[in-house]
Amino acid sequence: MTSSFPSDSFNMRVTEDGNLHLEDTERSQWIINSPNPPPLWKKLITPLKNNKLFSSSKKKRTCHENAFSFFSSLFPILGLLKNYDAFKFKDDILAGLTLASLSIPQSIGYANLAKLDPQYGLYTSVVPPLIYAVMGSSREIAIGPVAVVSLLLSTLCHNVVDPVLNHDDYRNFVFTVTLFAGIFQVAFGVFRLGFLVDFLSHAALVGFMAGAAIMIGLQQLKGLLGISNFTTKSDVVSVLESVYKSLCHQIPSGEWYPLNFVIGSSFLIFLLIARFMGKRNKKLFWLPAIAPLVSVILSTLIVYISKADKNGVNIVKHVKRGINPISIHQLQLNGEHVGQAAKIGFISAVIALTDLSLHAMLQLVHFQGLQMLYYTPMAILASIILSALPGLIDIREACYIWKVDKFDFLACIGAFFGVLFVSVEIGLLVAVSISFLKIIIQSIRPGIEVLGRIPTTQAFCDVSQYPMATNTPGILVLRISSGSLCFANANVVRERILKWVTEEDGLKETTKGNVQGIILDMTNLMNVDTSGIIVLEELHKRLLSRGIKFAMVNPRWLVIHKLKVAHFVDKIGKEWVFFTVAEAVDACLSSKFANP
Amino acid sequence: MTSSFPSDSFNMRVTEDGNLHLEDTERSQWIINSPNPPPLWKKLITPLKNNKLFSSSKKKRTCHENAFSFFSSLFPILGLLKNYDAFKFKDDILAGLTLASLSIPQSIGYANLAKLDPQYGLYTSVVPPLIYAVMGSSREIAIGPVAVVSLLLSTLCHNVVDPVLNHDDYRNFVFTVTLFAGIFQVAFGVFRLGFLVDFLSHAALVGFMAGAAIMIGLQQLKGLLGISNFTTKSDVVSVLESVYKSLCHQIPSGEWYPLNFVIGSSFLIFLLIARFMGKRNKKLFWLPAIAPLVSVILSTLIVYISKADKNGVNIVKHVKRGINPISIHQLQLNGEHVGQAAKIGFISAVIALTDLSLHAMLQLVHFQGLQMLYYTPMAILASIILSALPGLIDIREACYIWKVDKFDFLACIGAFFGVLFVSVEIGLLVAVSISFLKIIIQSIRPGIEVLGRIPTTQAFCDVSQYPMATNTPGILVLRISSGSLCFANANVVRERILKWVTEEDGLKETTKGNVQGIILDMTNLMNVDTSGIIVLEELHKRLLSRGIKFAMVNPRWLVIHKLKVAHFVDKIGKEWVFFTVAEAVDACLSSKFANP
Repeated sequence: MTSSFPSDSFNMRVTEDGNLHLEDTERSQWIINSPNPPPLWKKLITPLKNNKLFSSSKKKRTCHENAFSFFSSLFPILGLLKNYDAFKFKDDILAGLTLASLSIPQSIGYANLAKLDPQYGLYTSVVPPLIYAVMGSSREIAIGPVAVVSLLLSTLCHNVVDPVLNHDDYRNFVFTVTLFAGIFQVAFGVFRLGFLVDFLSHAALVGFMAGAAIMIGLQQLKGLLGISNFTTKSDVVSVLESVYKSLCHQIPSGEWYPLNFVIGSSFLIFLLIARFMGKRNKKLFWLPAIAPLVSVILSTLIVYISKADKNGVNIVKHVKRGINPISIHQLQLNGEHVGQAAKIGFISAVIALTDLSLHAMLQLVHFQGLQMLYYTPMAILASIILSALPGLIDIREACYIWKVDKFDFLACIGAFFGVLFVSVEIGLLVAVSISFLKIIIQSIRPGIEVLGRIPTTQAFCDVSQYPMATNTPGILVLRISSGSLCFANANVVRERILKWVTEEDGLKETTKGNVQGIILDMTNLMNVDTSGIIVLEELHKRLLSRGIKFAMVNPRWLVIHKLKVAHFVDKIGKEWVFFTVAEAVDACLSSKFANP
Repeated sequence: MTSSFPSDSFNMRVTEDGNLHLEDTERSQWIINSPNPPPLWKKLITPLKNNKLFSSSKKKRTCHENAFSFFSSLFPILGLLKNYDAFKFKDDILAGLTLASLSIPQSIGYANLAKLDPQYGLYTSVVPPLIYAVMGSSREIAIGPVAVVSLLLSTLCHNVVDPVLNHDDYRNFVFTVTLFAGIFQVAFGVFRLGFLVDFLSHAALVGFMAGAAIMIGLQQLKGLLGISNFTTKSDVVSVLESVYKSLCHQIPSGEWYPLNFVIGSSFLIFLLIARFMGKRNKKLFWLPAIAPLVSVILSTLIVYISKADKNGVNIVKHVKRGINPISIHQLQLNGEHVGQAAKIGFISAVIALTDLSLHAMLQLVHFQGLQMLYYTPMAILASIILSALPGLIDIREACYIWKVDKFDFLACIGAFFGVLFVSVEIGLLVAVSISFLKIIIQSIRPGIEVLGRIPTTQAFCDVSQYPMATNTPGILVLRISSGSLCFANANVVRERILKWVTEEDGLKETTKGNVQGIILDMTNLMNVDTSGIIVLEELHKRLLSRGIKFAMVNPRWLVIHKLKVAHFVDKIGKEWVFFTVAEAVDACLSSKFANP
């Protein structure tokens, strides 16, 4: 058989049954003559820009409209204010009060997590929401990762500066880190890099949050037990060791006062019951909302009246009154740690991206009230944080992930144990690595599906998925079950096809039912690289030498473009590129009868 | 609109036009009720095993047949011997002589590259082919990477042990490394891990070989120029610096003798001419084949007669006579460097995988002849290696890669410069990293294609690829142009679809041509993870709230399985899963008219 047989047989086929197949030729011309796809740099840039997807929906805008659109994308509050009314104002007041109840004690707790003085936590619960109210667009509330960022901050920063020995240096270093985090966040916003957070898969986040929740919970043991000399490390082993040593008085100054535990755990039980009731009965939704504030007030009163702080109950003590002095002079922009500060700032900024900050129009925190917080026991703050943690551990979701996607579950578990036993960064790294490993494995995993015709249709589908699909004798319809035919899977694909053709030939030699044609359905091939093209060429050559026809069906834009540039289309003949598998099968069959 | 509308409208559709759509329901049942796909571990293991692809072609084998099949897969020579005859024997003798002519001088040169004594090079050109003749299966010959492995070995080993100061230690270390390389290669063979080499893409190999060729060529400058004090580094900057200093006598003992250069370059010209003539005229194929041996004999005679070695011509000198003593006592298996030896051995084994070793039935190298090699000038060995290098630098292939795939070209150039300016390992690392980065980018790059109906067919294709494709008013047929809907692209996909629906709605509100239905063609989606499912659920919810129908077309086995487990199919309704886009469009249209 000579190499020119495809076009010969094709001509025969056309003369045999006229119009229909002439249309085939026309349509195959459409595949071959499609316009060139956009160049590489354009495709790489597109996802970064938030531009319009379809040219048909673009409308010309005047200069004024553009300016307004720009400002309202920067300050979404402009759009909200247009439709603001008294009804919405009432809702917002309610939301604000609820948040205040939760966020005042919580933010002091977070300051504690970050090993800073309590007033800094309070400032952060006032200033950022104000900015967010003007610049933010989300109407949702999430409380999870703020604690995670605080914890991350303290974990990473105490490796650089010791918070106990150099209290002021530590505080200044944290300020510098947060400045950098802020700068990076602004940069993310300006360059619309929010998609970076997508690199943490849902499953990884579930595991990460659960691990972080347990870690944060363990840190609260310090407050709950009233331990004075606590470890600065955050992994589960160090913390439990520290707790154990304190409880057994094995370390000199590491004593604990049972009264803290009594107060803390009783209010924790109260908070959890409030939470549970709020969940069971939707009408009691206000109960978990005000419970934290109630516990703070109650416990503060109890301590104030009973003077329990003299009996070892740890209290908040000094909360500085008034507006925070400008802290710009506390930044260390030319110290030895600037590089590290920038690095930690970057990590914090990325983690913080996962956070949909708080959205509430508070103008309301009464600074004079801060004095009141003097007698609030630390154990209460710990129990408020602890009571919020079970929501972060989503076992049902983990089970769901296990059922749906085993690999995702691996990422979930990896993140969980990484955070728990090593550190926040390692947990993140593990999760991201597993997620990307999965993408690589499933992109390059070589697999070939045999397609068969679904009865009563012209559709060809995987025969193992659809057992009722029927094969056409002598013709093998294959599809590569991978997004790209590339260096990593091309060789295996070639070997499998050839091996199977050989075996099939060997089996059916006697019954005269040899493979006459191989049809490769390319619908799902997103891309092909030079290694892939070489393999296709080899495959075509080997099939040709066995007298087996080779047809391609529906190659995508990029694939057909590359195959054209590589002259592969010329080699197999333009008339062996088809729109649908059914057409290709017809062509193979008619060429088989025309050219036996 | 309530959430139950899809099934309502579907029932209406069925009663309207009977049988045809009843068939649709049946077929959608086929999608929903397909058997469960094989579990994850099975799929991950499959590519590692060379098992049969299709159950239909499996035949039962007896125990004896199995044993024979196993042995002949281990020793392919058994299969070859069955069909061996006198004709093939003549061919093999010719091939053996040709190879001997090339490999004797070349292998001494390679020993030189690895900074070992020349006899070791000769041993390697005898023993491995013998083993390969029995165990190997390839009938092809490739000379490239053997030199690369030698070079790699010397580059990596001299970082651990200095070859000049501790000559014996260095030799023993190299032996240990090669032992480990051998162990790893056996392991690769036993576990059929040859596919590991696929991780180097064709493009990366082209760049890597070109870079390695230039590097090896530069190393030959030592022999060609007769420089006695040469650098032990292999990057282009160090080598050129060393050559420059030697030529200018800037380093004390770094002298060079022009006579080496005269001999070397004149024979190099002879070899290149022989090569060129052999390429131009196919009848002279024997000329390049015997040219190396001729040059060795000629140059050895010249030096022997003219006593040129007294005038600074470097000669091979001592080649140990006889069979190599067993070198097992030279292995260092409990020294300090064992770990490093294992590491280097692993790298060498992987690189060596790219090599299709030599296949020739030589029993022929005359050990007595080694004495003859005493007077062979080193410059000749250098020129033989140099003459083989141009074949490794394939500029035409690089241009082709540039034309076909810009990203592949990047990997090619990265490997080239990495090898040239840093080291072999870095070059490899760069190439592999770029190749995998490409896979990740193209797997997760979010992109959505709008599909339109191709005139005269039922096929729906990308409207930008086929400008003649027509849209159905009110119905949007979309396809995600990525192999998987996963954490890294799912959010962007959702945002784009929603944004476009909103815009389209805004535009056409007046003309009453709103989007009525969104049809998602899932043919090319290989996989979906939990993040992807969440996004699909959100998308469905948002579309539902706008009264837009959502249909899925032809989800693959794994995808429909996961969507079933996640109860997403229940949410959108089983009747909104279709086999073909055309059916989905029909269903959307009929539900539109039935339920306006």
